[in-house]
Amino acid sequence: MSAADDNRLTAPGSDPAGSSESAALRPGTGSRLDRYLPRYAARAHSMTSSEIRALFAVASRPEVVSLAGGMPNLADLPLDAVGELAADLIAGSGRQSLQYGSGQGEPFLRELICDVMAVSGISAHADDVVVTVGSQQALDLVTRIFCDPGDVVVAEAPSYVGALGVFRSYQVGVAHVEMDDDGLIPELLDQALTALQAAGRRVKFLYTIPTFHNPAGVSLAPDRRREVARICREHDVFVVEDDPYGLLGFDATVHRPLRADDPDNVLYLGSFSKTFAPGTRIGWVLAPHGVREKLVLAQESATLCPPILSQHLIGRYLQTQDWMSQIKVFREMYRERRDAMLDSLSELMPAIHPDIRWTVPGGGFYVWLTLPAGMDAKAMQPRALSARVAYVSGTAFFADGFGSRSMRLSYCHPTPDRIREGVRRLAGVIRAETDIRALFGASSPDVLTDRQDQRGAAAAPDVAEGERAAPDPSVVRHGVRPGVRHGGDADGPGPATR
Amino acid sequence: MSAADDNRLTAPGSDPAGSSESAALRPGTGSRLDRYLPRYAARAHSMTSSEIRALFAVASRPEVVSLAGGMPNLADLPLDAVGELAADLIAGSGRQSLQYGSGQGEPFLRELICDVMAVSGISAHADDVVVTVGSQQALDLVTRIFCDPGDVVVAEAPSYVGALGVFRSYQVGVAHVEMDDDGLIPELLDQALTALQAAGRRVKFLYTIPTFHNPAGVSLAPDRRREVARICREHDVFVVEDDPYGLLGFDATVHRPLRADDPDNVLYLGSFSKTFAPGTRIGWVLAPHGVREKLVLAQESATLCPPILSQHLIGRYLQTQDWMSQIKVFREMYRERRDAMLDSLSELMPAIHPDIRWTVPGGGFYVWLTLPAGMDAKAMQPRALSARVAYVSGTAFFADGFGSRSMRLSYCHPTPDRIREGVRRLAGVIRAETDIRALFGASSPDVLTDRQDQRGAAAAPDVAEGERAAPDPSVVRHGVRPGVRHGGDADGPGPATR
Repeated sequence: MSAADDNRLTAPGSDPAGSSESAALRPGTGSRLDRYLPRYAARAHSMTSSEIRALFAVASRPEVVSLAGGMPNLADLPLDAVGELAADLIAGSGRQSLQYGSGQGEPFLRELICDVMAVSGISAHADDVVVTVGSQQALDLVTRIFCDPGDVVVAEAPSYVGALGVFRSYQVGVAHVEMDDDGLIPELLDQALTALQAAGRRVKFLYTIPTFHNPAGVSLAPDRRREVARICREHDVFVVEDDPYGLLGFDATVHRPLRADDPDNVLYLGSFSKTFAPGTRIGWVLAPHGVREKLVLAQESATLCPPILSQHLIGRYLQTQDWMSQIKVFREMYRERRDAMLDSLSELMPAIHPDIRWTVPGGGFYVWLTLPAGMDAKAMQPRALSARVAYVSGTAFFADGFGSRSMRLSYCHPTPDRIREGVRRLAGVIRAETDIRALFGASSPDVLTDRQDQRGAAAAPDVAEGERAAPDPSVVRHGVRPGVRHGGDADGPGPATR
Repeated sequence: MSAADDNRLTAPGSDPAGSSESAALRPGTGSRLDRYLPRYAARAHSMTSSEIRALFAVASRPEVVSLAGGMPNLADLPLDAVGELAADLIAGSGRQSLQYGSGQGEPFLRELICDVMAVSGISAHADDVVVTVGSQQALDLVTRIFCDPGDVVVAEAPSYVGALGVFRSYQVGVAHVEMDDDGLIPELLDQALTALQAAGRRVKFLYTIPTFHNPAGVSLAPDRRREVARICREHDVFVVEDDPYGLLGFDATVHRPLRADDPDNVLYLGSFSKTFAPGTRIGWVLAPHGVREKLVLAQESATLCPPILSQHLIGRYLQTQDWMSQIKVFREMYRERRDAMLDSLSELMPAIHPDIRWTVPGGGFYVWLTLPAGMDAKAMQPRALSARVAYVSGTAFFADGFGSRSMRLSYCHPTPDRIREGVRRLAGVIRAETDIRALFGASSPDVLTDRQDQRGAAAAPDVAEGERAAPDPSVVRHGVRPGVRHGGDADGPGPATR
């Protein structure tokens, strides 16, 4: 279509926003009618706004207690000391720290990253580390080099919303596999891989957050780690292990990354966003040697190099500050908040309905709460916001429309008092919903049937395609056991709610 | 292929690097045999190391005068003041400046970016600016949202090596259009677009660096700017205008960006890498309103948000320092270096061979030098490195294997004395080559026929595909006029060498 054709769409004398000439006279406003629409790549059509972004504009109002965000609490960082480091760095060696750098990341930082990973038991060489713009970019680059449109990635049910966005943007299908309190269920993973491969789907990798899962709050049990690694090897599928919270555990339990015992079949993703600060945007991939080179090429094409100033600042911080003690300070701070949330949930929820269930995280930022059958956390969200409390509906964490009975509650950012107040408000909203249900029964238009109820043991593969906008209600999913547990349920395999 | 199959490749008792078990015993080393090779995405096969990267390991040795790099000279930056800004920023408001931020970029920085663009005559609204991880990421995101594999982008001949890498990584074909001393030649652009569209190719955009071109050193003449904009509109092709050097002009000539007069059909890419510092990795896209939203979604998927600390630091710098005076300091500094290079070229090259030609940049970082017919700058490179001078062979700046007779000489980083010494060394190398030619004739195995000699007026489209590894010598290119000029050539339309 030429510019002349464009004008044919316009009645003579009219001045639509999309016409070339009129738009040129209104600099900076662009066109209201998107004339670029027919020109986008196929992948652009699968880029849609996440539920979380739409929510945050409201959730960030001061009167709202936000249990929605994933922002770390930076109040405990030694900001004066970090500021001095930055000043010294720029005044003393700004000609290096403000210059272009290596696409792979600064060598001295990559050495220090190996020291950080050694805390979890990973033995690695700096040459196999690629620094990225947060671990989000690590996900982007790994997907970029491995996934063609139509490929499949296996992920936990639920999974990290930002990873699902990446997979969708590369037109990659996602097959969810259920978790329970001990994380991903190995036999269901095996079933899923077998069924997908039998159906001829190209499964590229398992994407997993085995430790202090976002959003589920659970961790993969040690024996399951060995099982999951073995199953992936048997199916010739590698593992992308995302571990942003691994060092933020609340007790003495050591969660050994899968990468520590399987260096050849695991790509390990790390981040300084939760152990230092997200505004630096520094994460990394530890990859088998051959893969590392492709990642560097992808990184150079994407950004030339990750931010040098950030890399030097974190490097100096790790070299000069007692970063391990700082992580212990963070752990205590987040544990206190986790406790505030769990205590409030135990105090208030069982009286509302005995089937309200939630996970008990041993670290990290999140509790995953599931409402009784027939309730809908997404439909309830506007009423929660009216009651000045925000959470993220579980549907954000599924590629296939499931999760509407659940919600993610984060305890990372508000103070313990605000968390208690937030849970009180949330309890009020849930109580009102259950009261309405009791009064009008399950046929009330407000009470939607949760699609999670359709779950059954899966024989056929269930893949949410990257390009598919709406979930297909006919599909079945891998897994029958809900990945949630009532805090006070003695049947649960994990620790009871404090 | 299962892990068991893997082992079948291994003779009993042997211990190849690729076997699962043995690799697991050698943590951190990965495998030498890349078992990931069959798993890469199609696009990964077109990701290959640029000629520049391979060169830089050698070129960065202190004994080598590098005329190869594109690193700005940061010595003139007020590093103490910038260091103090960083310290205040982190100590005073680290809870914001080290936190997650908006995927579109910090609102106050986007306002300031509009002030910067206003210097060149662009009127824009902060809402239409998307901050990126350097303008390299801007290129990546624009290509990501617009280009499917097999689409075509039109670019100057030569073009920016980093853009060609992005296009290749998205499997996008590149059709080069010739320049002369006044930049891109409009009638050849028109011919190319007509031929490509007649051949059914989907041309997505013109990628152009109209001002102080990298690597050619030329600028698009004012009347041609109008012509180029009109031709693109007529063919319903939009323009991606890359303008990292626009403020670094050496005289009073104002180069008005295409975007200033065509807000609806131009995506404008800017950067702080050359006017402040590249280590912050902050660039931006100014896009028509509808496109902006897609870019933000792509940005969130790629990195969540650009580095906040960098954004706040640049914002504070723009707010508190006299940044326009600082740019004038940069201009003077680069002009002195440009003059050192041009003076040395004029002094030494004509005596070696009357057909050595080079461009006279009015700003920016680069001179483009073309050797006499039959000579090969790429083949000469090892001998230049032996003589302790580095440049980038012209072939790096073509998607199709052309450019071997040319080289990019940068004057941005070495001191004027080093530049003069570098040109002296280069002159010695070129003289030795021409002496060999004179002695043995053009049939010497050292003297390759340059593919640029195959140029002819093009009827059929000539597209270098992203996925194609080697150039096809049978293709013809759009354009007959070489984009180079002898410094002392009175025939040239531009100013004579100083």
